[in-house]
Amino acid sequence: ITFTYLPGDGIGPEVGQAAIAVLNAVANKFGHGLDFEEHLIGGAAIDAGLKPLPDATYAHCKATGAILLGAVGGPKWDHLKGADRPELGSLLPLRKNLNLYANIRPCKPYAALIDHAPLKRERLEGVDFVVMRELTGGIYFGDKGRDNLGAYDECRYSEAEVERIAIKAFDLAMTRRKKVTSVDKSNVLETSRLWRETVIKVAARYPEVELEHLLVDAMTMHMLTRAQDFDVILTENMFGDILTDEASVLCGSMGVIPSASISYGTLGMYEPIHGSAPDIAGQGKANPLAMILSAAWMLRLSMGMDTEAAAIEAAVEAALDGGHTTGDLGGSLSTSEVGDWIASHVA
Amino acid sequence: ITFTYLPGDGIGPEVGQAAIAVLNAVANKFGHGLDFEEHLIGGAAIDAGLKPLPDATYAHCKATGAILLGAVGGPKWDHLKGADRPELGSLLPLRKNLNLYANIRPCKPYAALIDHAPLKRERLEGVDFVVMRELTGGIYFGDKGRDNLGAYDECRYSEAEVERIAIKAFDLAMTRRKKVTSVDKSNVLETSRLWRETVIKVAARYPEVELEHLLVDAMTMHMLTRAQDFDVILTENMFGDILTDEASVLCGSMGVIPSASISYGTLGMYEPIHGSAPDIAGQGKANPLAMILSAAWMLRLSMGMDTEAAAIEAAVEAALDGGHTTGDLGGSLSTSEVGDWIASHVA
Ligand SMILES: CC(C)[C@H](C(=O)O)[C@@H](O)C(=O)O
Ligand SMILES: CC(C)[C@H](C(=O)O)[C@@H](O)C(=O)O
Repeated sequence: ITFTYLPGDGIGPEVGQAAIAVLNAVANKFGHGLDFEEHLIGGAAIDAGLKPLPDATYAHCKATGAILLGAVGGPKWDHLKGADRPELGSLLPLRKNLNLYANIRPCKPYAALIDHAPLKRERLEGVDFVVMRELTGGIYFGDKGRDNLGAYDECRYSEAEVERIAIKAFDLAMTRRKKVTSVDKSNVLETSRLWRETVIKVAARYPEVELEHLLVDAMTMHMLTRAQDFDVILTENMFGDILTDEASVLCGSMGVIPSASISYGTLGMYEPIHGSAPDIAGQGKANPLAMILSAAWMLRLSMGMDTEAAAIEAAVEAALDGGHTTGDLGGSLSTSEVGDWIASHVA
Repeated sequence: ITFTYLPGDGIGPEVGQAAIAVLNAVANKFGHGLDFEEHLIGGAAIDAGLKPLPDATYAHCKATGAILLGAVGGPKWDHLKGADRPELGSLLPLRKNLNLYANIRPCKPYAALIDHAPLKRERLEGVDFVVMRELTGGIYFGDKGRDNLGAYDECRYSEAEVERIAIKAFDLAMTRRKKVTSVDKSNVLETSRLWRETVIKVAARYPEVELEHLLVDAMTMHMLTRAQDFDVILTENMFGDILTDEASVLCGSMGVIPSASISYGTLGMYEPIHGSAPDIAGQGKANPLAMILSAAWMLRLSMGMDTEAAAIEAAVEAALDGGHTTGDLGGSLSTSEVGDWIASHVA
């Protein structure tokens, strides 16, 4: 188990410690070595007088090709501008330079958390979808700036960019319920029309997979009224940013949702979808489950360790069912106690 | 009561007829004349061999400055491209050419419909906000096209465009609970940074109004977990498109949500937020309440007829409370019967 560990800011180091404890238990139990280096990123790097993404950090990420990231950013660095900011200066270049073009976020509410969600129970039972978000194109990375007319941001997609993320979505759908819902705004945007045309072309190679198209505005409704109908939701960068946050509400808590940002081969970066939560940092209150689940995804997707990943996921489910959780989920354990509970359950 | 009536496509003519019946009752009761011309728009215009927005239609809209629109578009015209399509060729040019830069959509769930929504009742009680969406700028109207790299859409805002919509939002907040929530993606987009700076400048002129900023991704969550906290939500064109559809879910039905697209002075276009619903067109099943409420908004915002608007709104609430509704809301009346019920309640 060789990887780069980037604790980052806020609660990142705490939830990271808990995940490391769990990975340690996995290594012992399954007879693997555990070999990682910790590197600075985001605000923590800025505070150490470095760039948000220091060269040494980037080099190590590239070398291991497996990155476990806590969270970056916080109000402390909000006065910084553009690429000097933690998120813009570290997260986006990591995604872009490592070519992590496919971001995967699951939405499968845990039985123990269904009543935490603002939606009615019957709307959530059986929900099990995954969002496949394009992560290195679109308006995030287009030309942007100011001129004498005001400000501008260009959204761009090439056919090749759409094709490769569509392939990831259809490949994933083949391992699941064989349905892809592609989300765009093709009644207004030219990039969305290219998106839709290209997705239709890729779909022709997967005759077993059902393809549905929805406009992004309508999708925000369908996600709340018929979430059970979705399997793989495929969408571009900005729409994916918006829709994955909405989807997290169905799960009752952001604190249990991991994410993977992957590329060709086994290269991948794994992180919770929650942020650095500076308001509760350093108090042992942070819920480490999303970070622990991100570690499980790293084992599965970058290292092919399915059994090991499944052991962690089973332990997380057991912790939730038994109420061995932090206060946000109604339990009374600290961050490290949750990590230890899961580590010993794995062992 | 002088206006342009654009029934449009699908259920547009049916719900429009119901609204006309109600306006007729209002005119009689309050001693106004009723003076409108019906014009073709969208697919109906295309089918008549005209452009989606015929010159005569546009000229009449400009002349009256008060437009009541049903809905445009449908699968019948889906093979058309770009500005030949009903929505792109009529709705967007009407918005742009009449300078209808402020789109207002309410979110205040009716007591009778709370249990229709997928959210739990306690999340919806007391919700009462309005979205102020910029409607003539941003990525909808920027340069778009294809080149040898792929497809592109440019998002642009000038400071003046942001300023005038922010003023509308703060003015509206002054008549309500004095809170503005501005939504952007300023951690990534340059247009969002201009948006935020400009909103902060405008806010300085309204010291009594509380200003909050949220990122669009986070907003999709907050709208579901703390909808009661919002008063006026201010946002740009594309984010407003997405967020108003999400907000409609809180109301239990799209069928009861009107919208106003306004400009300087009393110029305005009023339409339901639902679409043309071609699958149920011509069957007398369509719920006319959103169209009837749009007519009420026209009376209030373009004609200053507050009492008349309030009379319609009270009648709609009475219809909902008494179950005098179409099947989608659990009632057994037809479209025209709902219109007649409300007309006689007004009378
Ligand atoms: C921090 C921010 C730049 C980022 C994004 O918008 O992609 C975040 O919201 C996410 O979804 O990972
Ligand atoms: C039909 C479409 C162009 C339109 C939009 O995106 O503005 C619609 O979704 C709306 O919200 O009025």
